[in-house]
Amino acid sequence: MGNPQVLIVMGSESDLPVMEEGAKVLADFGVPCELHISSAHRSPQRTAALAAEAAGRGIRVIIAGAGMAAHLAGVVAAETVLPVIGVPIGGGALNGVDALYSTVQMPGGIPVATMAIGKAGARNAGILAAQILALGDPALTGRLKAFREAMAREVEEKDLRLQTTGKIG
Amino acid sequence: MGNPQVLIVMGSESDLPVMEEGAKVLADFGVPCELHISSAHRSPQRTAALAAEAAGRGIRVIIAGAGMAAHLAGVVAAETVLPVIGVPIGGGALNGVDALYSTVQMPGGIPVATMAIGKAGARNAGILAAQILALGDPALTGRLKAFREAMAREVEEKDLRLQTTGKIG
Amino acid sequence: MGNPQVLIVMGSESDLPVMEEGAKVLADFGVPCELHISSAHRSPQRTAALAAEAAGRGIRVIIAGAGMAAHLAGVVAAETVLPVIGVPIGGGALNGVDALYSTVQMPGGIPVATMAIGKAGARNAGILAAQILALGDPALTGRLKAFREAMAREVEEKDLRLQTTGKIG
Amino acid sequence: MGNPQVLIVMGSESDLPVMEEGAKVLADFGVPCELHISSAHRSPQRTAALAAEAAGRGIRVIIAGAGMAAHLAGVVAAETVLPVIGVPIGGGALNGVDALYSTVQMPGGIPVATMAIGKAGARNAGILAAQILALGDPALTGRLKAFREAMAREVEEKDLRLQTTGKIG
Amino acid sequence: MGNPQVLIVMGSESDLPVMEEGAKVLADFGVPCELHISSAHRSPQRTAALAAEAAGRGIRVIIAGAGMAAHLAGVVAAETVLPVIGVPIGGGALNGVDALYSTVQMPGGIPVATMAIGKAGARNAGILAAQILALGDPALTGRLKAFREAMAREVEEKDLRLQTTGKIG
Amino acid sequence: MGNPQVLIVMGSESDLPVMEEGAKVLADFGVPCELHISSAHRSPQRTAALAAEAAGRGIRVIIAGAGMAAHLAGVVAAETVLPVIGVPIGGGALNGVDALYSTVQMPGGIPVATMAIGKAGARNAGILAAQILALGDPALTGRLKAFREAMAREVEEKDLRLQTTGKIG
Amino acid sequence: MGNPQVLIVMGSESDLPVMEEGAKVLADFGVPCELHISSAHRSPQRTAALAAEAAGRGIRVIIAGAGMAAHLAGVVAAETVLPVIGVPIGGGALNGVDALYSTVQMPGGIPVATMAIGKAGARNAGILAAQILALGDPALTGRLKAFREAMAREVEEKDLRLQTTGKIG
Amino acid sequence: MGNPQVLIVMGSESDLPVMEEGAKVLADFGVPCELHISSAHRSPQRTAALAAEAAGRGIRVIIAGAGMAAHLAGVVAAETVLPVIGVPIGGGALNGVDALYSTVQMPGGIPVATMAIGKAGARNAGILAAQILALGDPALTGRLKAFREAMAREVEEKDLRLQTTGKIG
Repeated sequence: MGNPQVLIVMGSESDLPVMEEGAKVLADFGVPCELHISSAHRSPQRTAALAAEAAGRGIRVIIAGAGMAAHLAGVVAAETVLPVIGVPIGGGALNGVDALYSTVQMPGGIPVATMAIGKAGARNAGILAAQILALGDPALTGRLKAFREAMAREVEEKDLRLQTTGKIG
Repeated sequence: MGNPQVLIVMGSESDLPVMEEGAKVLADFGVPCELHISSAHRSPQRTAALAAEAAGRGIRVIIAGAGMAAHLAGVVAAETVLPVIGVPIGGGALNGVDALYSTVQMPGGIPVATMAIGKAGARNAGILAAQILALGDPALTGRLKAFREAMAREVEEKDLRLQTTGKIG
Repeated sequence: MGNPQVLIVMGSESDLPVMEEGAKVLADFGVPCELHISSAHRSPQRTAALAAEAAGRGIRVIIAGAGMAAHLAGVVAAETVLPVIGVPIGGGALNGVDALYSTVQMPGGIPVATMAIGKAGARNAGILAAQILALGDPALTGRLKAFREAMAREVEEKDLRLQTTGKIG
Repeated sequence: MGNPQVLIVMGSESDLPVMEEGAKVLADFGVPCELHISSAHRSPQRTAALAAEAAGRGIRVIIAGAGMAAHLAGVVAAETVLPVIGVPIGGGALNGVDALYSTVQMPGGIPVATMAIGKAGARNAGILAAQILALGDPALTGRLKAFREAMAREVEEKDLRLQTTGKIG
Repeated sequence: MGNPQVLIVMGSESDLPVMEEGAKVLADFGVPCELHISSAHRSPQRTAALAAEAAGRGIRVIIAGAGMAAHLAGVVAAETVLPVIGVPIGGGALNGVDALYSTVQMPGGIPVATMAIGKAGARNAGILAAQILALGDPALTGRLKAFREAMAREVEEKDLRLQTTGKIG
Repeated sequence: MGNPQVLIVMGSESDLPVMEEGAKVLADFGVPCELHISSAHRSPQRTAALAAEAAGRGIRVIIAGAGMAAHLAGVVAAETVLPVIGVPIGGGALNGVDALYSTVQMPGGIPVATMAIGKAGARNAGILAAQILALGDPALTGRLKAFREAMAREVEEKDLRLQTTGKIG
Repeated sequence: MGNPQVLIVMGSESDLPVMEEGAKVLADFGVPCELHISSAHRSPQRTAALAAEAAGRGIRVIIAGAGMAAHLAGVVAAETVLPVIGVPIGGGALNGVDALYSTVQMPGGIPVATMAIGKAGARNAGILAAQILALGDPALTGRLKAFREAMAREVEEKDLRLQTTGKIG
Repeated sequence: MGNPQVLIVMGSESDLPVMEEGAKVLADFGVPCELHISSAHRSPQRTAALAAEAAGRGIRVIIAGAGMAAHLAGVVAAETVLPVIGVPIGGGALNGVDALYSTVQMPGGIPVATMAIGKAGARNAGILAAQILALGDPALTGRLKAFREAMAREVEEKDLRLQTTGKIG
């Protein structure tokens, strides 16, 4: 699919089932991406290098997902001026509220584009990355509009089935 | 400054002191923007039109700020495939946690790039918009890097003053 | 059962098991209602139209249920002066607190009558819709009073069984 | 203004500045209302009687506002099949989250139509009461539509002023 | 066991598995109690009567448990000057935080002695009732002291087993 | 006023303005009490001794108030079988939610009768202590009933003034 | 392994599966430790003695874990000037937020080094204890550095496997 | 005072009034420390270097304080095996809950010894640093014990004054 344009990085291999949702969306939109595991805490230099070198390798958007005191997206954002999208991941005692606050409450100067907690957030991270890349890619804009229309149509069809059969399935 | 590339929309005139922080940042980066007041609830058709027509008018990124059950960013995002950045605004009984959850917890399909609550979030919305636009504008990338270096230098200078005088001011 | 007087709208087909609780209650009270799936984010124009045209079709009360950054009730309320009842739906990482805040914290001007999170809220939405319609329907008022008496009697019977057998079952 | 159609009841005289917002809205819509102070805890029999006798006196909607462990709306709702609108009032250590949960999380069977915390909620309680009464009063429906249009116009004017002068005031 | 000295009241039969913990504790201490189901919302007059008449029937302490917008303890406390102990019950979307705030945040004038959420709280309600009754009953004080010593001894034995076998079971 | 029957203990002198509310209530009811400052953390042995020796000195109820990680009430309760009433005190970053959870979430075995956060809670602690002592003191029961009637009358008078003058003052 | 240098104390035998994580870590680092069950509430004198006598027995760091209104770490810290590490344990209705606030929000004067809720926190307590002891033990410092490098290498290997196979397992 | 043994680092000059509390405590204990401003986000390389080089310069404990999505302590802890103490700083919309979760909820492997939010936490960070250093410094242990005794005595004196004058001041 050509050179990766989106880097998806996650703090732990246990985050893969969540973050793959973003990769799938990007594949559907024909946007090449790469996935990496790199921890803000356990492999800090490698994470800093991954972020700092991303733009030079042709990466244009970074998606970072982590749980608990999720520092990954902020640490990545501190090393690059590429747009960084953060996905808070739940699962622990605080159900992801800790990861949400740790990702979204960035101080002035270093933004992280924060998504919803968990899989919905990872999916939306992929879509947002595509929306950003589409600013310079009319064909991708077209695919995004088609995706929106398909979503609207799917809602309509579900509703129609509910009206006619009283069932959705 | 040329055609506006960023649309900043807020739900109420009382949000202006917060959202102006984003406009100032964009002005510093030389990115032309326009500010609008339009409410998701009190002027829904106008808000939908503002969002739906933005891309056609040359807008490339939308920043939306609102408080309480902040629906503005989500309602705008539903009408466009442009990247939408959401700024939760505090001030009410729940100090902006309501606005944060209403902005960030978007269901799969329609992303809102959520910032921190309040002025820090509005500033970062401006910076993120510039980071997105810089993907197609090397000069803007240069200004963003200079801004980062200036921030790092400012921290260093503050620290130096603390070391030499024991005072910061 | 005649022309629907209550419109129950939900953001996703996965909300149906919750929102059906409201439909069942209305059926028990003999109030005709219709259920629709329409998303504030994925099918915004259709949702706006559904709300805006409801009064003209004879709908008198609207019940809207959604999860996460639940914008549905607020978006519907913005398009009609019919009473709109909101049901926050849980299930995600934040267990419905996000949906509760997004539904109840409406800014001044556009009220949403918010119920408890989940099935209890959906049931109460049906009852409240009946209470509103009963203002112009003495027979319905009678059925509501009978329902209250039956609830009180049921509590009494449960208590009596507990006293006599030490068991409730 | 004729027989009161809306009863506004509050748990304490300190709630009056908040709850008067609802009374003002009703006065603007020409809906006669009465205000009462009656506490769920300090004057329980009187509160129960006020609620139980309301319908017989011609009251059609009840608005109840209270703070902290706000039981007032629920206690009133238990005594009547009239629609009861609850306004959580902040100010204490928990800023009204306690009052919000105590008002909105009603168990199945007895709904309370819950509004936002504080003055915005009290205003919306008045508007919702008017929307409910308007189901049987086309002139009131007209006034509600005019109010909506005035709100939309006001947003538009504020926005126009921002465009032309860069100032809002 | 003689005339009941403690009334345990719960809002719903589904609360019985929790509230029985309190009854068991009281049985262990030889304090006669009675359990009742009576809802603040579904059977308000009966609940008020139960509370108001309790002292006259020889009841000396009331324990009230309820979930969600748990009004039961407050409603009972409003009708009697007997000490009222409240047990917040979890299980719903908010895991009992709603019931905790609704029970503990009583306004000045009408106290509710609030326990922890759920079974630990129900057990402690029984113990606190015994501690209150023991003020006038030296034999009960003796049983409470023995219970404390048994608890301390049990901790010590568990610790000893851990030291000697490395296992606890 | 005779031998103190209630011991009010607080963790810090800064808690005095809150805890005095409880002392005032007890004075109004003619219940002799004593106030002590003793910290669970800064003077643990003294606090343990104060609690352990209270019953021997004729104390019958203990009220303990503290802020932040409020361990005082629990530490006191661990040393006595007297009823212990806990008052969570706010003022710090978490507004007393920390003190509330630290006071109320006691594990099974050692109850703390928890009141609302702050002054309302301290007042209610005094009232609850009086309610407990009144079980063996019919004259105190009489004063408590008179206090309740006075509260109900005061609400009624406030309401009457609102009806006749439209003002409360 | 020689004289225990770390005392791990927990409030209940049910906390063992969590707290053992800390013991395992210490065993891996070759730091001898002992585990004890002792409750702040059910065996307060024994807990105070355990803490007060620890330094005399050669203990250099104490780890204390408890759930709900977790007073254990604070009570231990009040009796010693050894560093005390607190582990909040979840599992109840509030998922450990209560234990977190009760452990971390210590008033000025008596610090508790608080870890994350649950097993991750218990593991980190063991690591922190080793880091503290390593200040006087260069060989332990070496083992800690090797542990860090192993963690970084493990992340790298997981990432490499993801790159080459697209699978992690 | 000799070579600094404690490094206090804060993310912004606005954190100085809070973090100075820790420096004052250390000065009182005769522990030499140095203060630095260095941001995890605005000067990431410098922060990493400061942490990585600390041990080599003779630093033995690091205290890190930051607000909002407080990554500073975690980022510092990732670069050193010295004990790192984290101080969450409040002041923003979420009052420091964001900083608390971002500091304390560290994943397994990299501990941060978290203190209370704000000034009390900064003071305790200084005390904990002294407690850690005292493990190898009997004279410092002596000063810590004297500090504890002084605190206990101060509580006793405050209490005595309250007993004799009824006033504290």
